[in-house]
Amino acid sequence: MELFNNERVDHILQRKVIQSSEVFSFSLDAVMLGQFVWLPIQKGRVIDLCSGNGVIPLILSTRSNASIDGIEIQERLFDMAKRSVSFNKQEEQIKLYHSDINDLPEEVLQNIGRYDVVTCNPPYFKTTKKREQNLNEHYTIARHEIYCTLDDVIRVSSRLVKSSGKVAIVHRPNRLIELMDSMRKYLLEPKRMQLVYPKEGAEANMVLVEAIKGGKPDLRILPPFFVYNQKNEFTKEMKKLYGLE
Amino acid sequence: MELFNNERVDHILQRKVIQSSEVFSFSLDAVMLGQFVWLPIQKGRVIDLCSGNGVIPLILSTRSNASIDGIEIQERLFDMAKRSVSFNKQEEQIKLYHSDINDLPEEVLQNIGRYDVVTCNPPYFKTTKKREQNLNEHYTIARHEIYCTLDDVIRVSSRLVKSSGKVAIVHRPNRLIELMDSMRKYLLEPKRMQLVYPKEGAEANMVLVEAIKGGKPDLRILPPFFVYNQKNEFTKEMKKLYGLE
Repeated sequence: MELFNNERVDHILQRKVIQSSEVFSFSLDAVMLGQFVWLPIQKGRVIDLCSGNGVIPLILSTRSNASIDGIEIQERLFDMAKRSVSFNKQEEQIKLYHSDINDLPEEVLQNIGRYDVVTCNPPYFKTTKKREQNLNEHYTIARHEIYCTLDDVIRVSSRLVKSSGKVAIVHRPNRLIELMDSMRKYLLEPKRMQLVYPKEGAEANMVLVEAIKGGKPDLRILPPFFVYNQKNEFTKEMKKLYGLE
Repeated sequence: MELFNNERVDHILQRKVIQSSEVFSFSLDAVMLGQFVWLPIQKGRVIDLCSGNGVIPLILSTRSNASIDGIEIQERLFDMAKRSVSFNKQEEQIKLYHSDINDLPEEVLQNIGRYDVVTCNPPYFKTTKKREQNLNEHYTIARHEIYCTLDDVIRVSSRLVKSSGKVAIVHRPNRLIELMDSMRKYLLEPKRMQLVYPKEGAEANMVLVEAIKGGKPDLRILPPFFVYNQKNEFTKEMKKLYGLE
């Protein structure tokens, strides 16, 4: 496997992921989403939008034999993701596309309305003010809604997923209402939600929502997830999430 | 103070509340809401809808000198609330009205758009099927949307509250999305949310939401509240809520 300057390999569950400080690295958000979402076990079709270095498809491949597509707009990240998939010998299961989600490749368009599951860890920030963006363009694109907005993500997810299929998104609590509004606008009914809190006594800083296309309103809120315990060590659930325990 | 058959007096914080097994008793939901909501300290105007036996106005009166109105449609509960207010010598601060929230009394109509805060612990259940309702009519009216729906509660709250004033509601998680949709429909922007979990590892069974009339979208999710610890004892936060510690 070829590693370029400043690249390293991080281990997550049974997978190895190429990361680099020059571009956006995967974070807890992606790892949470990769394990939160419902998946078909033996077969089916899954797609991950805004895949970055491919960490979500790689995590999903540890949980399911379904075919997994991934879409990433940044060539640098797409290239890292490709190499990670090869490194893990997952080319059969994971197909990656270097593409804008608003201009899907032909192979994906053929499966419109046929995906069992869509996942996405989208850019979180709305700001279009240049001075509030990161100087590093790779980070800016991954974190700010430059090439796709939340509305784009949900609209495209809803097109891709089949009736009664699932769409799971991770986002920040301050945009939870917009996320839910957008989901319902595109006929995705939120059914499962989980909040992530840095530790007991702290406000939530992450929210995961799974919706069902055409589902009936009836939301469940799963047990809260804490990252640190009172001693500032990782909680048991956090260690389990990373396969450390 | 006069107590009727089957009535008892429960203590909550510095207040005494007349309860009876014949009618709906106050629950954790009301106690949580009474302490969750933002209140002006020295002066202002607060109103509680669907007041039941008056527990929320009584709790609010321990936190604020604002004038507090309460509205209850059931005469039996209204009467208990009245006597509890007298028993606690809070007649100056708390005014109760025996009324339907969809047909507000003149004294309340005079203050439309002038309340700083509106609170409500509404009936939770939609069902209109007779067989799913409680045989006791008092319970049915308190728990089912017989005389007012969630939409009624939010519409009336939005009419009563002033611009930038607060509306705080407690409800079940399975209706959170409907609650938020309804709030936004009536220009109430959810700004603070808290989830209550029976204990660690369990799904949330209560949600508190505080909205600001005409506020900008920016939701905060407060630390989770647990009722029981792993030993099935009340948590410290629970004891504090009831003034037991």
